[in-house]
Amino acid sequence: MSFVSIPDNSHFSLRNIPFGIISTADRDPRPAVRIGDHVLDLKVFTASGGFSGLSSFKQTNVFEQSTLNKFAELGRPVHRAVREYIQEVLKANGKFSSILEENKELKSKALLSVDVVKTHLPLQIGDYTDFYAGRNHAYNCGCILRSPQNALQPNYYHIPVGYHGRASSVVISGTPIHRPYGQVLTNPKAEVKVPEFIPTRRLDYELEFAAFISKPNDLGHRIDVNSAEDYIFGYVLMNDWSARDVQAWEYVPLGPFTAKNFGTVVSPWVVLHDALVPFKAPTMERPPDVGDVLDYLKENDSKSGHDIDLEVEIRTKEGQVSVVSHSNTKFLLFSFPQMIAHHTVTGCNLQTGDLLGSGTISGESDAAFGSLLEITKGGSVDVKIGSSTRKFIEDGDVVTFRGVAKGDGEGLVGFGDVACPILPAIPYGKSNI
Amino acid sequence: MSFVSIPDNSHFSLRNIPFGIISTADRDPRPAVRIGDHVLDLKVFTASGGFSGLSSFKQTNVFEQSTLNKFAELGRPVHRAVREYIQEVLKANGKFSSILEENKELKSKALLSVDVVKTHLPLQIGDYTDFYAGRNHAYNCGCILRSPQNALQPNYYHIPVGYHGRASSVVISGTPIHRPYGQVLTNPKAEVKVPEFIPTRRLDYELEFAAFISKPNDLGHRIDVNSAEDYIFGYVLMNDWSARDVQAWEYVPLGPFTAKNFGTVVSPWVVLHDALVPFKAPTMERPPDVGDVLDYLKENDSKSGHDIDLEVEIRTKEGQVSVVSHSNTKFLLFSFPQMIAHHTVTGCNLQTGDLLGSGTISGESDAAFGSLLEITKGGSVDVKIGSSTRKFIEDGDVVTFRGVAKGDGEGLVGFGDVACPILPAIPYGKSNI
Repeated sequence: MSFVSIPDNSHFSLRNIPFGIISTADRDPRPAVRIGDHVLDLKVFTASGGFSGLSSFKQTNVFEQSTLNKFAELGRPVHRAVREYIQEVLKANGKFSSILEENKELKSKALLSVDVVKTHLPLQIGDYTDFYAGRNHAYNCGCILRSPQNALQPNYYHIPVGYHGRASSVVISGTPIHRPYGQVLTNPKAEVKVPEFIPTRRLDYELEFAAFISKPNDLGHRIDVNSAEDYIFGYVLMNDWSARDVQAWEYVPLGPFTAKNFGTVVSPWVVLHDALVPFKAPTMERPPDVGDVLDYLKENDSKSGHDIDLEVEIRTKEGQVSVVSHSNTKFLLFSFPQMIAHHTVTGCNLQTGDLLGSGTISGESDAAFGSLLEITKGGSVDVKIGSSTRKFIEDGDVVTFRGVAKGDGEGLVGFGDVACPILPAIPYGKSNI
Repeated sequence: MSFVSIPDNSHFSLRNIPFGIISTADRDPRPAVRIGDHVLDLKVFTASGGFSGLSSFKQTNVFEQSTLNKFAELGRPVHRAVREYIQEVLKANGKFSSILEENKELKSKALLSVDVVKTHLPLQIGDYTDFYAGRNHAYNCGCILRSPQNALQPNYYHIPVGYHGRASSVVISGTPIHRPYGQVLTNPKAEVKVPEFIPTRRLDYELEFAAFISKPNDLGHRIDVNSAEDYIFGYVLMNDWSARDVQAWEYVPLGPFTAKNFGTVVSPWVVLHDALVPFKAPTMERPPDVGDVLDYLKENDSKSGHDIDLEVEIRTKEGQVSVVSHSNTKFLLFSFPQMIAHHTVTGCNLQTGDLLGSGTISGESDAAFGSLLEITKGGSVDVKIGSSTRKFIEDGDVVTFRGVAKGDGEGLVGFGDVACPILPAIPYGKSNI
């Protein structure tokens, strides 16, 4: 269907057309879209009149930027027009074939193999907020910390629970993270509780889905849940690295802080809202005894979530590889529009480039859980990875997330890999600071 | 001492020279310093060769920006040289009198009355982190929520407890904030806990001291506690508005979120680190039974805190005015260098413009507490404001913070007013969204 050859199993079919930021040895960071195993350099494409067939699109200077923020803030109608136009341009023998397919010079300059490009953080993030909308994850954690009877807090079914995360340490797939040192209560049964300062022994991933905000709202003004989708630019997968032992000691009363501020990894290609519309699906059902949500969270759209298959692969330092989880975005109790409505209900202003994480997404069995804490029952049982075993992540391991919406023969819409290698801790001492 | 006349009680003596961002009817936002009831427009000053007497300062384009970030990232040696030079320029009959005092044309263009300028947020904030280092405040809150015996968590004396705050809603003194709507558990004793959606009934201020970060550290690299002061650009006062009823329902397990994301107000003039060096003082003493902090928090400097008098004034909508609290920055258990060392201990990267809040600073009696929650014992007793009374803040009230380091006859170093007016809630409904 496209003149660019696309492998059958590619996440980047003509239906997808995700946006990102790329650079090469001789090109500074600039916007691009991905198609199969190629990228279309939008700076070069724009400069050579690539958008001459889309006369409504006047703001082509957004593709001269080193982030997608300026493009994102143009809003849904522009994103839609630009994405659909690029799809037409990439179609074999389409009505815009003269733009690229038949223009050998531009094709050779603008269409590059993914092998020669480096990806960068797609947007400059203002604030990053992480929610806790994965009901099964919240329940599993509650069982580990408390008991099945009171695993979920009384507020859980009413509030899309969330907290402010650390924006500066959100990085792109492939960025290695050093095992963090931190305060750990190694002897929790001692009468006088004194922590030790050690590298974390319980390093864990969290499988998340996340949305980037396009247009801002003013301070003091709420976003209606039924308009909230218009504020979403697109989606990425995300690994919210967590040091469970540091978290256990620090998180009461103000929530996780240093246990999660050392690295959060996102996929490089932002899948636009429109590309996922065919895969919209209901959020999780609410149990009958908890009642309905408050009016400000009530949605007209019965399919405000998504049906996207997720998987977690671990490659151990010994070279063993296993997919340890198969999950799905449908295991979220609240939708992103509900998260946005709640985030702004007191008047908080969202800004272009803000990142909202879903919280860890766990399915309904050990083989579908989105963190090792859950799979290993709080670090008490092993998970097998080929001939290796793990309770938590070890130095030299690489955790990879994948997410893909399965098509109906028309091609896949996916996120590619979120690859997360772990390096040893930097020893504590003057010379390393 | 200065040729600019400075009222005796001014917070902005020649010892201070704080930096901010100003605009006028015909000047776009630009850097300035404050002196008495005047400001020196640094864009105009720079363009007219004002820095010709400071040949080491080549990066004068930092004063053509609309924020102080570029100036902040130049680091302490440059901040010091520039501030000391401006002090010399402003001295009566000083060695640089020809620059401004005797240059009538530049003086009339660059030296403006505060009455004709508007102030703006001094730095673009990347991330905002709020700590909880006010020991008395943490203890008082613990007593209200739990009991005096276990008011403080076991981690409190070991961790400079903090959480990620919302950066987008940090605004400048004078910005009115609408009373927020939010989820409130109005009937906490009901067996099935169902919240209501109402305007907060327990709107409260929090008296805080805050630091802006100058130079960044790389992801993965810790900042040593004994170098951490070098990463501080300067200080402001801060009001972290809080909706106590929303907070009570939402804060377990991930900390405050919508209860505090609707507005945080800072003073407009950043008092540089050097200006407060004469007022350095010890942090609070640790009780003997809790042991020492971990090595990474041990400071060589026995005066890593400050002695700055703080006050909270409430002006009611009825026109009554009282100072309800006198506190002091010395009631902090941890210093900013300790907060920075802890923040980065797992490898989190700080960036130029990041804002760190101290947490609420309460002294040792009702008349020194930094929030109404504490003064009114959780909303159970009234505080008198002239002939008015309050348990929490009402629509039309204005809360004003002031902070000043008392000099030794050489002039005051202070922060001016942080004025925080409260407007009624915006009614919930389609038309207001």
